[in-house]
Amino acid sequence: MNLKAVAINCSLKAGGEASSTDLMISVIANEFAKHGVELSETLRIASYNVRPGVSSDEGAGDDWPELRRRILEADILIFGTPIWLGNMSSVAQRVLERMDAFLGEGDDHGRYPSFSKVAVAAIVGNEDGAHAVTAGLFQGLNDEGWTIPAVSACYWVGEAMGKTDLKDLDRVPEKVTQTARMMASNAAHLARLLKAHPYPGEQGEHGKNK
Amino acid sequence: MNLKAVAINCSLKAGGEASSTDLMISVIANEFAKHGVELSETLRIASYNVRPGVSSDEGAGDDWPELRRRILEADILIFGTPIWLGNMSSVAQRVLERMDAFLGEGDDHGRYPSFSKVAVAAIVGNEDGAHAVTAGLFQGLNDEGWTIPAVSACYWVGEAMGKTDLKDLDRVPEKVTQTARMMASNAAHLARLLKAHPYPGEQGEHGKNK
Amino acid sequence: MNLKAVAINCSLKAGGEASSTDLMISVIANEFAKHGVELSETLRIASYNVRPGVSSDEGAGDDWPELRRRILEADILIFGTPIWLGNMSSVAQRVLERMDAFLGEGDDHGRYPSFSKVAVAAIVGNEDGAHAVTAGLFQGLNDEGWTIPAVSACYWVGEAMGKTDLKDLDRVPEKVTQTARMMASNAAHLARLLKAHPYPGEQGEHGKNK
Amino acid sequence: MNLKAVAINCSLKAGGEASSTDLMISVIANEFAKHGVELSETLRIASYNVRPGVSSDEGAGDDWPELRRRILEADILIFGTPIWLGNMSSVAQRVLERMDAFLGEGDDHGRYPSFSKVAVAAIVGNEDGAHAVTAGLFQGLNDEGWTIPAVSACYWVGEAMGKTDLKDLDRVPEKVTQTARMMASNAAHLARLLKAHPYPGEQGEHGKNK
Repeated sequence: MNLKAVAINCSLKAGGEASSTDLMISVIANEFAKHGVELSETLRIASYNVRPGVSSDEGAGDDWPELRRRILEADILIFGTPIWLGNMSSVAQRVLERMDAFLGEGDDHGRYPSFSKVAVAAIVGNEDGAHAVTAGLFQGLNDEGWTIPAVSACYWVGEAMGKTDLKDLDRVPEKVTQTARMMASNAAHLARLLKAHPYPGEQGEHGKNK
Repeated sequence: MNLKAVAINCSLKAGGEASSTDLMISVIANEFAKHGVELSETLRIASYNVRPGVSSDEGAGDDWPELRRRILEADILIFGTPIWLGNMSSVAQRVLERMDAFLGEGDDHGRYPSFSKVAVAAIVGNEDGAHAVTAGLFQGLNDEGWTIPAVSACYWVGEAMGKTDLKDLDRVPEKVTQTARMMASNAAHLARLLKAHPYPGEQGEHGKNK
Repeated sequence: MNLKAVAINCSLKAGGEASSTDLMISVIANEFAKHGVELSETLRIASYNVRPGVSSDEGAGDDWPELRRRILEADILIFGTPIWLGNMSSVAQRVLERMDAFLGEGDDHGRYPSFSKVAVAAIVGNEDGAHAVTAGLFQGLNDEGWTIPAVSACYWVGEAMGKTDLKDLDRVPEKVTQTARMMASNAAHLARLLKAHPYPGEQGEHGKNK
Repeated sequence: MNLKAVAINCSLKAGGEASSTDLMISVIANEFAKHGVELSETLRIASYNVRPGVSSDEGAGDDWPELRRRILEADILIFGTPIWLGNMSSVAQRVLERMDAFLGEGDDHGRYPSFSKVAVAAIVGNEDGAHAVTAGLFQGLNDEGWTIPAVSACYWVGEAMGKTDLKDLDRVPEKVTQTARMMASNAAHLARLLKAHPYPGEQGEHGKNK
């Protein structure tokens, strides 16, 4: 059974040139490929008009409904974001806000659209902040129904208060590739299990009466 | 010596109707008034086009340069944000990102435009998240040069997993007013001291050579 | 296939009387029982001598080796902690620190002792802080190899700046029970899948050469 | 007017050999000395018996009352902590918990024992986590009445997933010294202002009736 992953790149910049977040996503995608997981596309969120709000459709001109559809077609979400001021980017938080609508979109068994899918984090920055971003992402994504496989954060930052970007390095550090390798192995395994055996959600009377 | 405060409301909604964040800001402004601090205006950020980026001017159509000017005219910043997914709003994070430019705008003594000004937080949500938002705000704002007076977070959230808004309550809880009172007393005092005696910044050769 | 859960209670107080954290754990255990998951025991960490450090055995008088053994006998970890100053308790952080040793205890396939086990959070406080604690816990636990099932934080806190404890309420709020129900359903399902089909870890040459 | 600073080192290890946290504290103390601030002592918290709890005295064998006295004798607190699992150490969180008692120890004007004193953060780790620790510290310390001067976090961490300690480096990076210099200048200035002009706290009827 082959699986499909989708990546989002929450850089503050619209597309055009490749970002360090793109590079991190490609390192991870390369490892996923070894496990029969194909990366369908990388959505550069800042290239779209994702309107502020917490519903799944914020009306005319809102690109989120289409992005939402493409994200939910995949079995695995690679959530890529740069670090700004030690936090995830405003674009990443915007995506979390729009997925808040999942909590009101449970099926007959109370299962959100994200149930039985897994999410992993791809985080880059010049310097410190990856742990804070991971914490905020895992907390938000899990609340929204995503499952987090073992060891699901792959990140790179340089020495404290530095200015170097991942894409400025001569090569991707071996530690990053190792982590991506373990992350991809775990996430592919868990996504495959959950695709074959989805969460049952609430059963019987609980489900009916809710 | 009278002081001036400015408030920002980082609601996801553009202006029109008053939000719970507005209500919290007005409670705080009322207490500030008792200490000779006038609230000049409340900037509803979502009503402006604050372009993504980390510079002080992101070009044509960017409203940040004007917002930045108005924020820096004041001695005190009341940073108001709702909680979404346990994090500050994407609009609030956008503001932090734009203030990142302060780090490259030090004067001859290395002092950012925010130096000798104080910031306080006004946070509202249906439920839990105010401590996480306070942490992210204080860390980011302080890195950007703002001073945080003693007890500078005033917040309201309801019981866990509830749906009530501050503006739905019959009256503002006494605990909130008490905290706003202490916060305003401290912030007014500290802003007044810093206005009369600004941080000296780097002196002598350090300042010159930097 | 029946499963075993173990709970840890990271209250600052040693055992004796039941805490609100205990009450939350019992609500969750009750829901787990409906899915064939037996709670083996609740370990009140403050009743033991868990020495500071980041190894699995900090020498004479250290109770962690025994606690570690009992935690790893179970398929599911219910990580219970109160909130203090908006953070997880010092006792909870101590447990995370001791589990840091897992990162150096991978098997031939690089799998930590926690791999193929799931963790959920049980958080209580008088007021706000559950999202911050959830974030810190999920980030730390996931880094240490635990898998986080969909919707894995069950918490209760009262209104902002309040003084009420969960155990002071007439009854456990329905929202808490609902969340515990969904959490138990998801966690039992995922733990069962992972027990039958553990993560493969690194295979072939990677595994051998590492 | 000379000022006094006190440092706490929240390493997991009891004293004996100098830690990277000690080194960071000494870099900061050196800069403070240029502003007439003397470091009275560095309290290695793990060398004392700080009992779990949230009162100012947890009874027989509790060393906190003495540590609390020494901390409050100073005008400036240098809060030093290593990073573990992306969070402040359990020893640091223990200190925050014990200072929670300040909230019930206000004077006739509602001022906590920490009012009119400033706190700065000294954070070290092998790798990423300083922003998360800064956030948790500033939020907790500010709630407990400490004032945070502009740019009050001085930290060092190495490249992502690295193993190097600050004390392993040939020399302290210039960026760290620069930050310590600015931090010391700001903190000394603000502490001096607040010592000469303490927060007034609640006045008149509010103060009397509270």
